[in-house]
Amino acid sequence: MARRSRRRGGEGGVGETSSKIYQLPRQQLKNPYLPTEVLSEDQLETIHLASLKILKEIGIDILLPAAKEYYKNAGADVDSNSDRVRFDPAMVESFIGLAPSTVTLLARNPENNMIIGENYVHFDTVSSTPNVSDIDGGRRPGNKKDFHNLVRLAQHFNVISCIGGYPVEPLDYHPSTRHLEATRDIIQLSDKPIRGYSLGLTRLQDALTMSKISRGLGEHSEINDTILMTTINVNSPLVLDDAMLEGIIEMAKTNQLSILTPFTLAGAMAPVTLAGAIAQQNAECLAAYMLSQIVVPGAPIMYGGFISNVDMKSGSPAFGTPEYVKTAMAGGQLARKYDLPYRSSNVNASNAVDAQSAYESVFSLWGAIMGGANLLKHGAGWMEGGLVASFEKFILDVDLLQMFTEFLTPIKVSDAELGLEAIADVGPAGHFFATEHTQERYKTAFYPPILSDWRNFESWHEAGEPKTHEKANTVYKQALEEYQQPHLDASINEELIAFVDRRIAEGGIATDF
Amino acid sequence: MARRSRRRGGEGGVGETSSKIYQLPRQQLKNPYLPTEVLSEDQLETIHLASLKILKEIGIDILLPAAKEYYKNAGADVDSNSDRVRFDPAMVESFIGLAPSTVTLLARNPENNMIIGENYVHFDTVSSTPNVSDIDGGRRPGNKKDFHNLVRLAQHFNVISCIGGYPVEPLDYHPSTRHLEATRDIIQLSDKPIRGYSLGLTRLQDALTMSKISRGLGEHSEINDTILMTTINVNSPLVLDDAMLEGIIEMAKTNQLSILTPFTLAGAMAPVTLAGAIAQQNAECLAAYMLSQIVVPGAPIMYGGFISNVDMKSGSPAFGTPEYVKTAMAGGQLARKYDLPYRSSNVNASNAVDAQSAYESVFSLWGAIMGGANLLKHGAGWMEGGLVASFEKFILDVDLLQMFTEFLTPIKVSDAELGLEAIADVGPAGHFFATEHTQERYKTAFYPPILSDWRNFESWHEAGEPKTHEKANTVYKQALEEYQQPHLDASINEELIAFVDRRIAEGGIATDF
Repeated sequence: MARRSRRRGGEGGVGETSSKIYQLPRQQLKNPYLPTEVLSEDQLETIHLASLKILKEIGIDILLPAAKEYYKNAGADVDSNSDRVRFDPAMVESFIGLAPSTVTLLARNPENNMIIGENYVHFDTVSSTPNVSDIDGGRRPGNKKDFHNLVRLAQHFNVISCIGGYPVEPLDYHPSTRHLEATRDIIQLSDKPIRGYSLGLTRLQDALTMSKISRGLGEHSEINDTILMTTINVNSPLVLDDAMLEGIIEMAKTNQLSILTPFTLAGAMAPVTLAGAIAQQNAECLAAYMLSQIVVPGAPIMYGGFISNVDMKSGSPAFGTPEYVKTAMAGGQLARKYDLPYRSSNVNASNAVDAQSAYESVFSLWGAIMGGANLLKHGAGWMEGGLVASFEKFILDVDLLQMFTEFLTPIKVSDAELGLEAIADVGPAGHFFATEHTQERYKTAFYPPILSDWRNFESWHEAGEPKTHEKANTVYKQALEEYQQPHLDASINEELIAFVDRRIAEGGIATDF
Repeated sequence: MARRSRRRGGEGGVGETSSKIYQLPRQQLKNPYLPTEVLSEDQLETIHLASLKILKEIGIDILLPAAKEYYKNAGADVDSNSDRVRFDPAMVESFIGLAPSTVTLLARNPENNMIIGENYVHFDTVSSTPNVSDIDGGRRPGNKKDFHNLVRLAQHFNVISCIGGYPVEPLDYHPSTRHLEATRDIIQLSDKPIRGYSLGLTRLQDALTMSKISRGLGEHSEINDTILMTTINVNSPLVLDDAMLEGIIEMAKTNQLSILTPFTLAGAMAPVTLAGAIAQQNAECLAAYMLSQIVVPGAPIMYGGFISNVDMKSGSPAFGTPEYVKTAMAGGQLARKYDLPYRSSNVNASNAVDAQSAYESVFSLWGAIMGGANLLKHGAGWMEGGLVASFEKFILDVDLLQMFTEFLTPIKVSDAELGLEAIADVGPAGHFFATEHTQERYKTAFYPPILSDWRNFESWHEAGEPKTHEKANTVYKQALEEYQQPHLDASINEELIAFVDRRIAEGGIATDF
C-alpha cells in the first residue's frame, strides 16, 4: 500500500484521478511533543505505591494452576486454599525494566512493519463489535460481508497501521472455527500486522501458525520475530482468568506481543474515584506484566489503559468523557514510568454519527495522543461503546487520524518557511495568494479534510445541506472501489487454505454453543 | 449567578427541580497542566527575531496621524511620504515586559470579576455574527430578539465569564445608535464583564461611560479600574487603521483592556507557511503592543492569536484544522515569552451542528486550552466561520466548556481517593456500585453532560433516535426559561436609559449608511 500511495501523493501520476480520497503516506508516525502530565511526580509515585499495596495486601485471583506455579516459583505468596496470589513489593519492583521499551511488530508486507514504543504512534481499526451499521442497511449483526469490507477499509487507508482483531465479529462463521476463517480472510485481504484472540490456547496457536504461513515460513517453523499481537484483558477487579493467563504465557514463550489491558468502568469494576481506579488498573497491569516476564524475561508487552466512567444515574458506560481523558493521560504516565509502550483507544458512546460521536471521539483522541499512546486501538469505526462498527464513523475517524497526523507534524521554521521576502513583496494591505511563495506551496500546504464541508451556506444549502455522516457514506463506498487486494503468493494462499480446511475438518475449537 | 448556582449544586435546595440544566459553579478556573509547546525554544526565538526583522525592514502602515506621532516620539522611523512606520529591534525589545502579565476585568457584579492571566482560563460567548439560527426558525439575519436571548444564555451559564461583544448583531438597531442600545440591553440583561467595539472613538467612550454608570459611578467619574475590554484587529497584512489605533490609545489612556488580535488566514492575509504567518502575526501584535505602552506604560493588553488557513481549492476559510491548532499553541508560546495574557477562540466552519462542527470546535478548544489561553473568545455559539450564532451550537459549546472545566480539575490523590479499603472490601470479582465508598460519591463523581445520550440503542431508537443538536434545541429553550434577570438598581437603570436616550437624541454616531 505504501508504494501505491506514495505515487498517489505525487502530481499527475499514472492512473491518478481527482476523485481519489486524499491520503497521507504510510509512515512510522512520531509524536514530537511532550505528553500532557495530569499527575505530579509525587502523585504518580503515590499511585505506584498504592498499586504495590494492592498487590501485597489484597492480591489478584489467578484462575489458571500453571500460572500459579509460575508466580509461586518466582516468589509470590500463593494461597493454597483459594486462587489468591499476593506479591511482595520487592518482587514487583524486581521485574520492572525487564520488558523491552520498544517492540517491532512485523507485517507480512515489511513496508507495514510497526515500531511500537518511544514516541511512535500507530492507529488500529475498530475490533470485536457484535454489530455493524451504515446508513443504507441500518444496524445489523456482524457478518462476513461487512467484516470483509471493514478489513478492506482498514487495509486501504494508510493511516491505519494494523488489523488488530475482527473489525466486526463475523457471526456467520461458527465460533468453533471463526478464528480460522476470519484470520484467513484477514491475511488474504490485508498485508498489515494481525492479532490473535486470547480465547484459549488453541486459537492463539492457530493464529500464530497462520501468521507464519502468511510470510512463507512453514507451519512448523521456529520464529523469534514478533508477528502476532493479542489483547489480554483483566476481569476487573483483580481477576486473571484461564484464557488470559494462557495467553500471557503462550505469547511470552513465543516472543509475541501481549497488550495488557484492564478494562474498567470507575464505579462498577473499579473505585468511583479516578485515583483508585488508576491504582487498581496499575496493579492489574503489573500482575500480568510479572507473569510474562517470569515466563520469559524480556517478552514483549504493552501497558494498556482503559478506564472510563459510568453514568451514575443509569449505569450506562460512558466514553470520551473528561474523566476518560484524564485517566488515559495518567495511564501514559505510568507506562512511561515503567518504560513500556502504551496503548489507548478511540472510543465514544454515541448511537449516531452525530456531534456527540465526534466530540467524544476527539476527546478520546486527545487523551490518547497527548497521553503518549504508542498504539491506538479501536482507531476507526467504533460506536455505541463498542457494540457497533460503523462504516460512516470509520471514514470520520480516518479523517480525524489524518488530522492528528498533521498536528503531529512539527512546524518548520526556516528562512523559506518564514517567507520574509514574500512578506516584503506583498507589503502592508497586500494579498498573498498570487505570490510565488504561495503558488509553490498551496497544493500541499494544508491538510485537505476528507469530510469537512467548507462551502458557504448558500452553496451548501443548494447542494441539499449534506451532513458529515452523509458524505462519509459515499466516501466509504468510494474507498471500497479504490481498494486493491494486496499480493499473496499463490503457494502461500494454498497452504493457508489447506491449514484452515484441515483445522476445520478437525473440528476447530470445542465450544458449548 | 454564582450564589444561585451554588445553591443549585446542593441537594434538595429550595426551588430545585430535576429538570434544571446541570451547571458547574462560577469559578476562577485555572489550567493546572503545562501547555503543549509545538515550537522548540530555538524556533520560538527565530520567530521572534523574524518579527523584529519585519518591523525593522518592512514596517507597518499606521493610518492615524496621532498614532504616528506617538510612535515617532518614542523613536520609531516614521516615513514622511507614506504611512509606513519602522521599528528598531532595540526599541521593540525596550517595551517588552511593560504590560501587566495579569489583568483583573471588573464586572458590575463583583462575583463575576475576571482575573485574566497566569494560568486562569475564561470562556466568552460568540460575538459579532451577522446571522443567527436555530432549528425552529432556520438561518436569519441578526435581530434584537435573538440578540437578547443569546445574551440571556451567556448570562445564565456559569461557564461563560463575560459578554465579549454582541453575540449576534442586532441589525434592527440602526448602526448610528446600535452600540448605545445594544450595550444598554447587555447591562440590563447581564451582570458579567462587557466589551466596547473599537469602531471609532465615540463608540468606545460611550461604552466606557455606560460601564461606569452600570456600577453606580457617575457618567463623568474618574475610574482607574479596568471595566471594559475591546478587541483590536489588525488589517493584516501589516496595517493598523484609524479606528483600531484610536482604540488602542483610548483604552491605554483609560486603563481599559485591549485584546490585540491580528486575524489572518495563511495563504491570504499572511504567508501560506505557518512559520511565516506566526512571524507576521507576532510583528503585528508587537506593533500594537508598543503603541499601548507608549501611551501609558503598564496599560493592560492581551496577546491574541488567530491564524487559520484557507481551503486552497476554493479560497474558503477553514477553522479548527490541525494547522489552526498548531498556530494557536504557537501563539500561546509567544504570549508567554512576552509574559502577556493570551487570547484564543472556539471556532469552526461548519454549516450545521453536525459531526464537523463538533470535531472542528474540539480541535480549536484543545489548541486554545493546551496552548495556554487565558481568554477564549467565541466560546459558545459560533458557526460558519463566524457568519452565524447558533442557539443549538451554544448549548453544545457550553457542554464542551464544562467538560474542559472538568478536565482541568486535577485528579485528587489521597487515601480516601485511592480507596484501598474499598478495593479490599470488594475484592477480586466483586462490584463497586453498592460500596459505601461509591455511594458517598456517585452523585458528584463524574461530570454529567447536558447533551450526551448514553442510552442503549434500543431505548434511544424507541425515543425516536434523537441527535445531539435536537436535544440542544430543547435545552436552550429550557435555559431561557430558567434565566433570571440580574438585579440592577432602579436609579442606575434610569441613569443608563437617560444616557442612551440623550445620546440617541444627539444622533449617536455619524454613519454613511
